[in-house]
Amino acid sequence: MTLTMTPTITAFEQSPDGGKGLARDMRVRWALEEVGQPYNVRLVSFSEMKQPAHRALHPFGQIPTYESGDLALFESGAIVFHIAQGHTRLLPDDANSRARAITWMFAALNTMEPPIVDWGITTLLERDQAWYEQRLRVVEGHTRNRLLELSSHLGDADWLDGAFSAGDLMMVSVLLRLKNSDMLFDYPNLSTYVARAEARPAFKRAFAAQLAVFTGKQPN
Amino acid sequence: MTLTMTPTITAFEQSPDGGKGLARDMRVRWALEEVGQPYNVRLVSFSEMKQPAHRALHPFGQIPTYESGDLALFESGAIVFHIAQGHTRLLPDDANSRARAITWMFAALNTMEPPIVDWGITTLLERDQAWYEQRLRVVEGHTRNRLLELSSHLGDADWLDGAFSAGDLMMVSVLLRLKNSDMLFDYPNLSTYVARAEARPAFKRAFAAQLAVFTGKQPN
Repeated sequence: MTLTMTPTITAFEQSPDGGKGLARDMRVRWALEEVGQPYNVRLVSFSEMKQPAHRALHPFGQIPTYESGDLALFESGAIVFHIAQGHTRLLPDDANSRARAITWMFAALNTMEPPIVDWGITTLLERDQAWYEQRLRVVEGHTRNRLLELSSHLGDADWLDGAFSAGDLMMVSVLLRLKNSDMLFDYPNLSTYVARAEARPAFKRAFAAQLAVFTGKQPN
Repeated sequence: MTLTMTPTITAFEQSPDGGKGLARDMRVRWALEEVGQPYNVRLVSFSEMKQPAHRALHPFGQIPTYESGDLALFESGAIVFHIAQGHTRLLPDDANSRARAITWMFAALNTMEPPIVDWGITTLLERDQAWYEQRLRVVEGHTRNRLLELSSHLGDADWLDGAFSAGDLMMVSVLLRLKNSDMLFDYPNLSTYVARAEARPAFKRAFAAQLAVFTGKQPN
């Protein structure tokens, strides 16, 4: 890898979560660390994200983006997939195993994440509404249904489909949104699954790097 | 393609939408039609979907699934991606164009679909709640923000990134969920975009096939 090929990603200049690793650049950093790819980070403010210059990279005015040479991408799922290609550590060579790992990426983003984000938004923004308790029960119910199904599938396996893959990376990234709740503890194998992923050196490096943006301290 | 390689997908035995093409098997049928791949359909009832035999194929007890030889997949995004691979009609050969097409697949499923589904669920299930009008304004606002951003990106182009791709197939499939609302009409280029996709022969064949399940009439 030559210096000119070092990709640049974008991340929040100011963290909505105080560096808890819930911003979606974390997923991209983690994937880059898993494959040993150095990267540059450009921080963007909330107002810069909505300006034409950033929207040219990301039509929905969000982070992360990924730039490498002539290529510019957005959407954490697409960026992680792009990074994962050609790296057996994140996507297996065997065609069927590979297709299943990709399936888990989509399952994380399209089946698990929507109810979890809905739960998060409800607890954040609807707390003072008259309907809060009633709505919370509904959205928590949706989330718990998915957690139970995921827990049943995982059983006592370490990862979702054999070896650790980009599917696990994405699923754990989504489950981490529940760390502030008690919900995950009710599914012990999912708690252990998340902890197993957090113990990976690549995860730790990525987490330290995103945290350092907000603490101003360089990661160890 | 030999007969033994004909894949089997699953679809609803009873349609929640009366064959309007909103069930997620439609996306898979459409992709299969675009690449000219014949397929078999196995219909499953709502109770069968939750049984262990189906959950072995789909851990979340939903449709569609995809079976071909030793491979079993779930998640419409993953299945469409699997079908699209190796077919330049759905994923371009050029690496950068391909990465951008895949980006639009993820954007459709992870950025556009969640607010649109939230809007749909709200109108369907919360209509009788005291908070309905207030909640509806919020979820419609989220959806309109995304539609405006998508509309701005599309401009007067035919498709999201050059030629029609699996990204467009997925984006249109998601936008079709708004056909029962007036919202899409407020973004004329998006309405035209959806109509352009619906006019594709492959779309029409897929739509007729899913409708025939419920009307009992064979497609023309």
